[in-house]
Amino acid sequence: MKKRVVQWSPPQLLVVIFVFFSTLGMFLLKLPFATVGGITMLDALFTAVSAMTVTGLIVVDTGSVFTLFGEVVIMCLIQIGGLGIMSFAVLIFMMIGKKIGFRERLLIQQALNQTSVGGVIKLVKYLFVFSFTVEAAAVVLLAVEWVPEYGWGRGLYVSLFHSISAFNNAGFSIWPDSLMGYAGNPTVNIVISSLFIIGGIGFTVLVDLYKTRSFRKLSLHTKIMLWGTLIINTAAMIILFILEFNNPHTLANLSLFDKLQAAYFSAVTPRTAGFNSLDYASMERDSILLTILLMFIGAGSASTGGGIKLTTFVVISLSALAFLKEKREIRLFRRTISEFHIFKALAVSMMSIFLVFTALFILNISEKGTDFLPVLFEVVSAFGTVGLSMGITGSLTEIGKSVIIVVMFIGKLGPLTLAFSLSKPDKEKIRYPKEDILTG
Amino acid sequence: MKKRVVQWSPPQLLVVIFVFFSTLGMFLLKLPFATVGGITMLDALFTAVSAMTVTGLIVVDTGSVFTLFGEVVIMCLIQIGGLGIMSFAVLIFMMIGKKIGFRERLLIQQALNQTSVGGVIKLVKYLFVFSFTVEAAAVVLLAVEWVPEYGWGRGLYVSLFHSISAFNNAGFSIWPDSLMGYAGNPTVNIVISSLFIIGGIGFTVLVDLYKTRSFRKLSLHTKIMLWGTLIINTAAMIILFILEFNNPHTLANLSLFDKLQAAYFSAVTPRTAGFNSLDYASMERDSILLTILLMFIGAGSASTGGGIKLTTFVVISLSALAFLKEKREIRLFRRTISEFHIFKALAVSMMSIFLVFTALFILNISEKGTDFLPVLFEVVSAFGTVGLSMGITGSLTEIGKSVIIVVMFIGKLGPLTLAFSLSKPDKEKIRYPKEDILTG
Ligand SMILES: [K+]
Ligand SMILES: [K+]
Repeated sequence: MKKRVVQWSPPQLLVVIFVFFSTLGMFLLKLPFATVGGITMLDALFTAVSAMTVTGLIVVDTGSVFTLFGEVVIMCLIQIGGLGIMSFAVLIFMMIGKKIGFRERLLIQQALNQTSVGGVIKLVKYLFVFSFTVEAAAVVLLAVEWVPEYGWGRGLYVSLFHSISAFNNAGFSIWPDSLMGYAGNPTVNIVISSLFIIGGIGFTVLVDLYKTRSFRKLSLHTKIMLWGTLIINTAAMIILFILEFNNPHTLANLSLFDKLQAAYFSAVTPRTAGFNSLDYASMERDSILLTILLMFIGAGSASTGGGIKLTTFVVISLSALAFLKEKREIRLFRRTISEFHIFKALAVSMMSIFLVFTALFILNISEKGTDFLPVLFEVVSAFGTVGLSMGITGSLTEIGKSVIIVVMFIGKLGPLTLAFSLSKPDKEKIRYPKEDILTG
Repeated sequence: MKKRVVQWSPPQLLVVIFVFFSTLGMFLLKLPFATVGGITMLDALFTAVSAMTVTGLIVVDTGSVFTLFGEVVIMCLIQIGGLGIMSFAVLIFMMIGKKIGFRERLLIQQALNQTSVGGVIKLVKYLFVFSFTVEAAAVVLLAVEWVPEYGWGRGLYVSLFHSISAFNNAGFSIWPDSLMGYAGNPTVNIVISSLFIIGGIGFTVLVDLYKTRSFRKLSLHTKIMLWGTLIINTAAMIILFILEFNNPHTLANLSLFDKLQAAYFSAVTPRTAGFNSLDYASMERDSILLTILLMFIGAGSASTGGGIKLTTFVVISLSALAFLKEKREIRLFRRTISEFHIFKALAVSMMSIFLVFTALFILNISEKGTDFLPVLFEVVSAFGTVGLSMGITGSLTEIGKSVIIVVMFIGKLGPLTLAFSLSKPDKEKIRYPKEDILTG
């Protein structure tokens, strides 16, 4: 007789792992010695899901409400969530590796020698070693700043917490004003932003960069990510610098160097780090609009970041542009992007818009007293697992908090499971005749 | 020696015609006897462009600010604008007719016998006769209601004005509260909404319906338009009915029958008639959100309506859905929609989002004192040439009014000229190798 074993597909396994650790986290954070003065079950769940999905939205102030034990629980959830997501992304990457271009296949094979269970374990091991190495290095750099300020014990702990939070794009900080106290501190700005940019660009890009020394030989995906990140971050920095230049609540009272630092940090953090060195509730409306767009776009595939992903945005924009130029193909760096990816980008974008719209629809009813823009900001921040807020998270209704929990969960796991299920081949057989229609 | 004659392409001609009549309209409305107490040049231009692009956004109250002469100028601009757009759309339709499916080609040939200058003139003549017939019939029906109320002269004039305004989806009314005084009047509700639905569904659909008696034999375009209109209008009506049921400023104090009438009218008017029987400034936030979505979607191609067009929305949604179901083709009514149309729909949507975003960006700076949601509502209303407003049009700054003028202009002429230029064949030759990337 055959034994019936519960056989989970990888996406099911991912969901189970996330539900398990979020629930465990909730119970741990609910323990009497996890908080200073207690916390509701919903707030504990919210915090656990926010940490596990590396979002960083907070209903209670992390530093003052949680004890050291509570903070360590959050830190562990962030590490598990971040590594879990990256490992799963690596798995998908290997699965679609078979379909993926020649260069990626080569890279994967170089890293693995073979696509087997052993191979997966090997690559995941590399991933773990890489993550811990980067985090450790960052702890040392941050400690240079924070040990003199907070002493050895506290200084190292603060450095560790923020290193893990930043590399995993979690955006949790133990300070109530996030990194606003360090808006003009170059070390903190550079180390923290480097961490979340490295963590957010995607492991496959890093592998490619490690293996390939010439830019021309890099994969198309890596080229798009590098150029895209550079262009979008620079453009956002310039726009935010101009928009906030005279805003007395943000840049106006800072020195030019600090203005540039704060504009840089505010440009890179929405995709999808979630730390802030400026107060989003006081920003100009166009800065908010730009930040919402950046949060929606998000980081790189196979990374700790969220959003529709930079490549998705690039593919959508370029296909629209190519069509307007009456070109029937998207070309970039002497390569053509296949229709499969254009359709995938379209599907991911539409599903994301649908999710944001649905959540917004419910929150418009449950949060009647709150302005529209902060609610939109909150929903997109949860979808992109960014963690920035205009300050309404703590005062959301129970329905509002529940919706945001669900959006964080789907925002993080949705695109991954979608990418996984889409790696199966097309089984369609029957073809109908084509017929044109009028659009536009 | 060859004579150099200025040779305009059809889209250039369209732009020239629109600029000419808008400018002429501005000067006519600026004449002393066009207004009761004068009007600024910018407001005259705004009104002329709003009428010519059949938008219906108003900076001054039509009925009280303009004299009869002024109102007749507006009425003429609406008629010229509406017929101009439909004629041009027919021209495009004939041009891409060569590329279009077998049924449409047949229909066009039946209507024209040949695709020649004579053929164009013939079809445009049909269009004119059809338009005037529908408008005349509506005048009779509306007069039954309004002649008893206003007497023969005024009653017939009021009926004519609203008939022209409704059929051309202009949304201009001579009453300061639009049709709010007739929220519970079945004749007005049915006649006006029938006019703008017929005008907004597109001339090609009407020709198809006239020529084809069996639903199964209708073209794919016609089927999508008919089913799409029915589904989207019904869904919107049900949602608005539920959302506004208890709102004391809108439905709460109406009888059940009047509630249903007002919900129906509010569901159909955003695509893209622009009359209102309820006050949008007092509506629930979710009704506003839904209305913004409907305004963005808009009416049918080759019609007096605006927006990205219903077919564009259907194509985008279905291609996303088909992809998620792992189907590589979009099928509908036993037909496949070609990739060309998916790309076109994507391009039109992206360009539209870009236009709305850019305008919103400028208005966020120029209209600092105004809430975000009314500004977003206004921009989308101008883009879709809808004409609904949450009541901020008159109090916009000069920059704000200028931006809205430009958005109305591009919103109306952009998709048409785009559709025209895209009817040229693909001339690309060099093909690069395909390479996959990660998205989502
Ligand atoms: K985050
Ligand atoms: K209109």
